[in-house]
Amino acid sequence: MPVPPSNLYPAFNIVRLSHIELIVTDLARSRAFYVDTLGMQVTDENDEEIFLRAMEERGHHCVILKQGDEPAANFLGFKVYADEDLDRAAEFFSEKGLATEWVQRAYQGRTLRTHCPQGIPLEFYAKMDRLEPIHQKYERYSGVKPLRIDHFNCFTPNVDESVAFYNEMGFRVTEYTEDEISKKLWAAWMHRKGNIHDMAFTNGVGPRLHHLAFWVPTPLNIIDLLDIMSTSGYLANIERGPGRHGISNAFFLYVRDPDGHRVELYCSDYQTVDPDLEPIKWDLTDPQRQTLWGAPAPRSWFEQGSTFVGSELREPDLKAQPIIAP
Amino acid sequence: MPVPPSNLYPAFNIVRLSHIELIVTDLARSRAFYVDTLGMQVTDENDEEIFLRAMEERGHHCVILKQGDEPAANFLGFKVYADEDLDRAAEFFSEKGLATEWVQRAYQGRTLRTHCPQGIPLEFYAKMDRLEPIHQKYERYSGVKPLRIDHFNCFTPNVDESVAFYNEMGFRVTEYTEDEISKKLWAAWMHRKGNIHDMAFTNGVGPRLHHLAFWVPTPLNIIDLLDIMSTSGYLANIERGPGRHGISNAFFLYVRDPDGHRVELYCSDYQTVDPDLEPIKWDLTDPQRQTLWGAPAPRSWFEQGSTFVGSELREPDLKAQPIIAP
Amino acid sequence: MPVPPSNLYPAFNIVRLSHIELIVTDLARSRAFYVDTLGMQVTDENDEEIFLRAMEERGHHCVILKQGDEPAANFLGFKVYADEDLDRAAEFFSEKGLATEWVQRAYQGRTLRTHCPQGIPLEFYAKMDRLEPIHQKYERYSGVKPLRIDHFNCFTPNVDESVAFYNEMGFRVTEYTEDEISKKLWAAWMHRKGNIHDMAFTNGVGPRLHHLAFWVPTPLNIIDLLDIMSTSGYLANIERGPGRHGISNAFFLYVRDPDGHRVELYCSDYQTVDPDLEPIKWDLTDPQRQTLWGAPAPRSWFEQGSTFVGSELREPDLKAQPIIAP
Amino acid sequence: MPVPPSNLYPAFNIVRLSHIELIVTDLARSRAFYVDTLGMQVTDENDEEIFLRAMEERGHHCVILKQGDEPAANFLGFKVYADEDLDRAAEFFSEKGLATEWVQRAYQGRTLRTHCPQGIPLEFYAKMDRLEPIHQKYERYSGVKPLRIDHFNCFTPNVDESVAFYNEMGFRVTEYTEDEISKKLWAAWMHRKGNIHDMAFTNGVGPRLHHLAFWVPTPLNIIDLLDIMSTSGYLANIERGPGRHGISNAFFLYVRDPDGHRVELYCSDYQTVDPDLEPIKWDLTDPQRQTLWGAPAPRSWFEQGSTFVGSELREPDLKAQPIIAP
Repeated sequence: MPVPPSNLYPAFNIVRLSHIELIVTDLARSRAFYVDTLGMQVTDENDEEIFLRAMEERGHHCVILKQGDEPAANFLGFKVYADEDLDRAAEFFSEKGLATEWVQRAYQGRTLRTHCPQGIPLEFYAKMDRLEPIHQKYERYSGVKPLRIDHFNCFTPNVDESVAFYNEMGFRVTEYTEDEISKKLWAAWMHRKGNIHDMAFTNGVGPRLHHLAFWVPTPLNIIDLLDIMSTSGYLANIERGPGRHGISNAFFLYVRDPDGHRVELYCSDYQTVDPDLEPIKWDLTDPQRQTLWGAPAPRSWFEQGSTFVGSELREPDLKAQPIIAP
Repeated sequence: MPVPPSNLYPAFNIVRLSHIELIVTDLARSRAFYVDTLGMQVTDENDEEIFLRAMEERGHHCVILKQGDEPAANFLGFKVYADEDLDRAAEFFSEKGLATEWVQRAYQGRTLRTHCPQGIPLEFYAKMDRLEPIHQKYERYSGVKPLRIDHFNCFTPNVDESVAFYNEMGFRVTEYTEDEISKKLWAAWMHRKGNIHDMAFTNGVGPRLHHLAFWVPTPLNIIDLLDIMSTSGYLANIERGPGRHGISNAFFLYVRDPDGHRVELYCSDYQTVDPDLEPIKWDLTDPQRQTLWGAPAPRSWFEQGSTFVGSELREPDLKAQPIIAP
Repeated sequence: MPVPPSNLYPAFNIVRLSHIELIVTDLARSRAFYVDTLGMQVTDENDEEIFLRAMEERGHHCVILKQGDEPAANFLGFKVYADEDLDRAAEFFSEKGLATEWVQRAYQGRTLRTHCPQGIPLEFYAKMDRLEPIHQKYERYSGVKPLRIDHFNCFTPNVDESVAFYNEMGFRVTEYTEDEISKKLWAAWMHRKGNIHDMAFTNGVGPRLHHLAFWVPTPLNIIDLLDIMSTSGYLANIERGPGRHGISNAFFLYVRDPDGHRVELYCSDYQTVDPDLEPIKWDLTDPQRQTLWGAPAPRSWFEQGSTFVGSELREPDLKAQPIIAP
Repeated sequence: MPVPPSNLYPAFNIVRLSHIELIVTDLARSRAFYVDTLGMQVTDENDEEIFLRAMEERGHHCVILKQGDEPAANFLGFKVYADEDLDRAAEFFSEKGLATEWVQRAYQGRTLRTHCPQGIPLEFYAKMDRLEPIHQKYERYSGVKPLRIDHFNCFTPNVDESVAFYNEMGFRVTEYTEDEISKKLWAAWMHRKGNIHDMAFTNGVGPRLHHLAFWVPTPLNIIDLLDIMSTSGYLANIERGPGRHGISNAFFLYVRDPDGHRVELYCSDYQTVDPDLEPIKWDLTDPQRQTLWGAPAPRSWFEQGSTFVGSELREPDLKAQPIIAP
């Protein structure tokens, strides 16, 4: 199945990825990681939850850490353009036979909870409490200086099906990897907000969260984080990088939070607002697609991910294995 | 007049600023500046014109240098979402009583030429020839490593009127300066593509182009350009900076091309895709609005600009002067 | 008087500049500046004094802040190669008729206090308490990430005389400015440790301290400091920069501490260990000697400095004025 | 054998490492690597040799590429303080029973050729032709922007013996790795010029050159080089990095030239001019000594090196193997 053409007039208008709720098993330990080490800002917290934003965000939260017994991701949150898009979204999912419900979420307007056919729990909202800008409170920057949430990346048992569904929701493919033999998609990067992706899919046991990512100012901030993590007890949490991706052209680092949730620090991809932007195709056998330069990814990076609360895992339909450099 | 609320459903859909045609008086001299010094890439050239793109652009051109007798800007180009948006745009301008014509432009599909009520010549197109990506041809990066055209900034004799008109076209205000006494706008930054601006307006004799801007990777690339320009005969072309703007938070440098056209090198502003993003208001008397830190702007920066071909200049309606630090 | 040839075998062996004692009028206010803003590390403190080191230094202190009634600099400290160099130094100064005394200094071995003919109080030692390395304690880096003290710069009423004297002590000239008419030195940069300078002299009412300087990792750390200072109450303390010096090639920023003591943040000069390194001569009329690019220095930068405790000021012998760009 | 105390008064005075002559099998191919890719500057060339310098060097050459049949290193060059140091050096080596000869070298004054007891060919000179400064010719910077040669690193069959000999020549140990069981040195870093090293030794079949290194401005220049090499045919020449060394604290990258000679790009170590600087000891079992963070070194990095012309190889006396992370 080829990459579908851009769907220029989707049924409802998603602005961007917005936030994620992560179940963590030791809230204080996670706080030390996200706040004291990465440099995220706390916007509210209690014994059960911590709400975080990055430095240039005005929405109340991009990450919610929630105390629980088992690490998991509860949902992926997306912001829609206007309140009426929520009704259109509810209709869109209902027509597909996908269950929807209106849920109450702290600091948000009405919120639609549903899931995609591959089982990823999704929440949509139009309004979230807006906070005072802090992007020019420079004495508060620390760690990797996270500026904003940039994207989610998920394992899916069928990338072609995931791409087709998110394409229908208006996500446009910017780059993709195709298995040359089966002509099926191995992985795809899809966006709404105008850079490489809000959402990426990779072939694998799924649905699972592969990682969430934060945009940081420059590669030097990622090097600063490496220096800090490697000398303050987080050396083992550095999983892959630094390096430059072939796909997306981004400079990257992958780290694991204390529960194993994977976080990417990411910068320097490119603008993709043109609706006629041609997706870039990469061959599954080209090792530079993942790593333009830098050490190959470890096995854990290919295999491990966070399960979603309430979603059943399924083996991937495509069995070919990614090329792992020795 | 207050900043108008975002117009969420404009009559036609502009994706982003796209390109500019600059009349220059010595094409070879301009080539030395834009290509050999700034690092722009030539996509076509002949005795009369040079077409340029920046490193991550796939559209054929973002700057056209055209040989002429007097320095001027010929028009500002914008890309619309789909071909049908061109017809809607033609109708929109016609209904306002603003002359439109369909023009032939090299490497572009059908192109609508018109102008805004304040007299800025505008050209809209949906399709431009697409070129092979070169953003990963790293041996071709040089100079300031320009990645893409970022914005235009124009003098207008009435910022309130300009803002109202571009707001009707769907441009949303991200930051603005208000004259506290008259409650009129002194300057405003308006975007379509999701960062601080595609287009900014400043009170002054107009319409004139204040500057065009290129996005560059990091502040260090701007420092590299300063080192190069100051030791290769372009010291006098450095007009203002480096510094950080209060408005936009961008790290910036302003240079003048050999004809005096002003070019900004710009990086590190922030994402503005949220339709409910609250515009940030700056007081005209706050010197940090222009320069969070850095030397004050010289008089030339406040006063000089490029005229547009065929547009008549008008004195500004608002007479208050900007605060120029001594 | 021409620049004297390098004195390859001086009477005693100075390794490098080492430390300075600054009299400040509000110790807590100075601590907020040097520690909380610049990022210096406290190695000891009491009600009267704060001892500071930079991140890669293992000697106990490079700055001593001392509570007093009037801002001043108490002395400039230098480390000599071996204990016997202290005796040779004492003999050297005594033979010149310059008063010497052995003083007790906290955390130091025996220390010789004396002064140069132009009146700068100097202290020499061979041993200072050594502390554990902290250069890889990356979570402790903050502010401008100061790595080490780099140099002192002083006004002197006669640069030729100062250069001749420090040349006799083994300091070698790396760059200098000459008044083309009188053929006298306007300023000179002299080193012992192998970069542009441990000590610089500028023509002016003296002896006075023009500034002390810290070496920082990259220009981006200086930009970070500008962002922090301009948004945390220190905007008025930014005096000059950022820019690149023609002389030394360094990227620089000058800030003033709460008492007006001038501090330079400095990086990217070059290695000068070759004893046959030819000094680079700059013409007093070349504005790029001070500022390869960047805004011209303000008048305060040319005129203001910190007096030395117990030293009498003298008008400069050379009356020509520096060229101040308008 | 413990690390020997610093020898403060060696028999002759070496200023710094200076240059190396590399035998290469295809001069044009090597020129493409060193000049067009790394950014070295050609100071002279003919059919047999190319002389190179880095951007801030004023000596005529730091690398000589010489056409030959087999890749090898011909000698390591060092600059001494004064002409009389050459005679003292000749006496020093003769007394040790090590052969010396006075050789003619282009662009140098009289030059002493000899070798250390472990067989590394060494050449000493006091005077080399000096060239005009180019460090402010910024339009000539390219590639990784190499500023100066920084150090040599050699395999030696007995690190204790090498360290003892170079210590006698005045090199001081800054950091070292000890085998905890045998209490013998596994590796040591020794300097003359005031940073981590002019010369390092690692246990292994030797004598062989492990690598030569160039100092570059910032980690971003190393990232630039990675981007360039990985997209212009040199991907396979990237051997290890980027990363930060525990030892030296430097940010590094190792690449191989077309003949396999290893070149390190290196920045951000620290100042070591204090004669009482305590060497930092690292345990051979601590993986952070080599890589504070970053991927482990590949086997080639531990095993391969360039032979020296005319030197016989010897198995190392210490047989313990380095810890290679899996």
